[in-house]
Amino acid sequence: MSEIVKPSTLPGFMELLPKDQILFNEMMDTIRKNFENHGFLPIDTPVIEKSEVLLAKGGGETEKQIYRFQKGDTDMSMRFDLTVPLARYTVQHFSDLSFPFRRYHIGKVYRGEKAQKGRFREFYQCDIDTIGNETLDISNDAEFPVVIYNTFKELGFDEFAIKINNRKVLKGFFSSLGIKDSGDVLRTVDKMDKIGQASVLQELIERGISEEKANKILDFISIEGTNDEIFAKLEELNIEDEIFQEGFGELKTVIEYIKDYDIPEANYAVDLKIARGLDYYTGTVYETILDNYPEIGSVCSGGRYENLASYYTERKLPGVGLSIGLSRLYYQLTQANIVKAEKQSLVDLIVIPMNEYVHEGIRLVSQLRKKGVKCIVYTERNKLGKKFKYADTLDIPYTIVVGEDEVKSGKYTLKNMKSGEQDLFGIDEIVARINNL
Amino acid sequence: MSEIVKPSTLPGFMELLPKDQILFNEMMDTIRKNFENHGFLPIDTPVIEKSEVLLAKGGGETEKQIYRFQKGDTDMSMRFDLTVPLARYTVQHFSDLSFPFRRYHIGKVYRGEKAQKGRFREFYQCDIDTIGNETLDISNDAEFPVVIYNTFKELGFDEFAIKINNRKVLKGFFSSLGIKDSGDVLRTVDKMDKIGQASVLQELIERGISEEKANKILDFISIEGTNDEIFAKLEELNIEDEIFQEGFGELKTVIEYIKDYDIPEANYAVDLKIARGLDYYTGTVYETILDNYPEIGSVCSGGRYENLASYYTERKLPGVGLSIGLSRLYYQLTQANIVKAEKQSLVDLIVIPMNEYVHEGIRLVSQLRKKGVKCIVYTERNKLGKKFKYADTLDIPYTIVVGEDEVKSGKYTLKNMKSGEQDLFGIDEIVARINNL
Repeated sequence: MSEIVKPSTLPGFMELLPKDQILFNEMMDTIRKNFENHGFLPIDTPVIEKSEVLLAKGGGETEKQIYRFQKGDTDMSMRFDLTVPLARYTVQHFSDLSFPFRRYHIGKVYRGEKAQKGRFREFYQCDIDTIGNETLDISNDAEFPVVIYNTFKELGFDEFAIKINNRKVLKGFFSSLGIKDSGDVLRTVDKMDKIGQASVLQELIERGISEEKANKILDFISIEGTNDEIFAKLEELNIEDEIFQEGFGELKTVIEYIKDYDIPEANYAVDLKIARGLDYYTGTVYETILDNYPEIGSVCSGGRYENLASYYTERKLPGVGLSIGLSRLYYQLTQANIVKAEKQSLVDLIVIPMNEYVHEGIRLVSQLRKKGVKCIVYTERNKLGKKFKYADTLDIPYTIVVGEDEVKSGKYTLKNMKSGEQDLFGIDEIVARINNL
Repeated sequence: MSEIVKPSTLPGFMELLPKDQILFNEMMDTIRKNFENHGFLPIDTPVIEKSEVLLAKGGGETEKQIYRFQKGDTDMSMRFDLTVPLARYTVQHFSDLSFPFRRYHIGKVYRGEKAQKGRFREFYQCDIDTIGNETLDISNDAEFPVVIYNTFKELGFDEFAIKINNRKVLKGFFSSLGIKDSGDVLRTVDKMDKIGQASVLQELIERGISEEKANKILDFISIEGTNDEIFAKLEELNIEDEIFQEGFGELKTVIEYIKDYDIPEANYAVDLKIARGLDYYTGTVYETILDNYPEIGSVCSGGRYENLASYYTERKLPGVGLSIGLSRLYYQLTQANIVKAEKQSLVDLIVIPMNEYVHEGIRLVSQLRKKGVKCIVYTERNKLGKKFKYADTLDIPYTIVVGEDEVKSGKYTLKNMKSGEQDLFGIDEIVARINNL
């Protein structure tokens, strides 16, 4: 006998009980169905890639977090997002793809971050992107809020806001203030909802921006109102910067197209505070906030990028996309009791044969399954109480006990475990009852 | 501009084009649906585990193939099957699970094997197992052929045979010949269908078994006939070995229960040649052969084991299960042209607006989507020919062109791209046409 090893998982790796997994899978199925119904095509890339390919862009915080290792002569890394694999995939299979290439990808990604509550080292991302060959019309930027809207509606949310901005609007405005290198400023502005106005002001000043300009930035990103009111106020500012004008034009166009897509105005809004941390984004940016739970932050983010794959090709591949961090979303929604596992089981019926009637129980289950009933049969030899406890723990809606009487009569007592109601039925009636659930 | 890196994947890592991914996903969905409808519950474990936990069993060929690495102080390994994670999961979450614990798991596993055609280093396994607490009734062994049967039927196969044996029958028979250490003999016998009778004979003799006994083994595993005929012949042999008798009894019982489950006799058969390579199995064993493609070997295998998790607990957890190696199955079926990708797209309709009517095209798509039509809109400014080429390449069943006439009349020409038929319809008629596809 070998030594006993205590079974445990690594910290930062989520693992769920079946009832929670059922809920998680339902959310993932809903996301997938919406992605597919909006015309995005599935891809699935290897979790492990050549390090030289995956890390072609190199540098940055991410690289430290990557699971990278050697096997034989090969230097391999585990993917840390689904965007780099998309870039690699799009270039590698370029001639076999039709552009605009609309793809979705749901899969696990890996980041060896410092473990902390609600941060995972292995987590699911659900990404959609549309990639153009050389050009991609701005109207595509309007379709992503539609997909988010339909997906979150079907996930059971009514009150959420897709916040939309354009980085060129911010960059152009900063430029009009004489701030040329705006990357850090964008990242500071992006923290507004997290750290508040005073801290943003302080951080801007620490970055060497004069108090006057810092206040102007705060005033700018605090512009509020309906989309039309915000646009009117932006017009009034008379900012002549070319980048600003380009971004402003794009933002107005995107909002016009979103109107064509006809999603409720309550569910989307221009928000000049939205900047996104990544330099990668060059135009439209999105975040999604659950109105009643702003503290969990953006549940779905993304944006437009000018060039997907400059590390793999000289071809220009502009795109726009968004990502739902499903593991984090699931964790936050369940922690906050916003969603709750309700099913312990995926079947509607358990057949419980008396110990001498296992053959007959199996025959019944077999007949019911052929008629489309999702059911199982409990075949362990046990006391009846223990058998019912199993049905109870798995919270299976209906039970049928099979004993001498049932076998003789061909009639079975179908018991509704919630209401306690029970009635004697033949097989066809049982099927009708259960399949009309 | 940074240097261009040639985008490529590692050898042995499967990656599919969207049309092939659609087919792959359909197969995976079918498998999942069948697993769920038969009452198996989903689990999803981390791809990376602590090496000390994952490799608790240690030793063997597998260990060399494992992707194992260090991150900080942590020694981690990627899972090489779904059985060790199941063992770990069952013990770790023991008090939260109901037994018999019926679980399915579909996920990627990793083996750094020598790369060769049709062997993958990353591949999907689709596993179902039923785990008992201390005991597990033999009737459970009869349910797995039913799940295989229903799954492969729905995957589109009619002619396949689930071959069933019991390792105790073989072990007991070998023991009756005076062969006590039967592991190697079982592995040799298991190769019968691959290497043929003469080679098995030779290998047995090389393993130190007399020619007389080796011939007896060959005679034994070559016993053929209907299940009842095989049972009658085994009776006639009058083998008194206890293990043989136990296995023979189990095998007969399993076949009886399979009859209760009522799957066609053409689709299952006792086959005394089936031994399975793994020592892990202790009773019933299964393999599944596609009648017309025996050369691709078993497409679904499994069996009964006495103790799932002896490395993690002193508790006895007997189980029975089976596994479909989906990546390998997909590869073989497509290589042999047994299945073929048929869909390039998951939507039924593409709306193609003339360049000046993109807004109107989007509005139409929005209305159609609200009525449940899966559709996309082509919004790039291009010549009409290029737009149709996109619809063609994606093989989308229907197109609608939106221009001045359509917008004025509210009537649209719905074109069936296969038949070339086209007719003028209002929106509700379009919805009715497409959703009745």
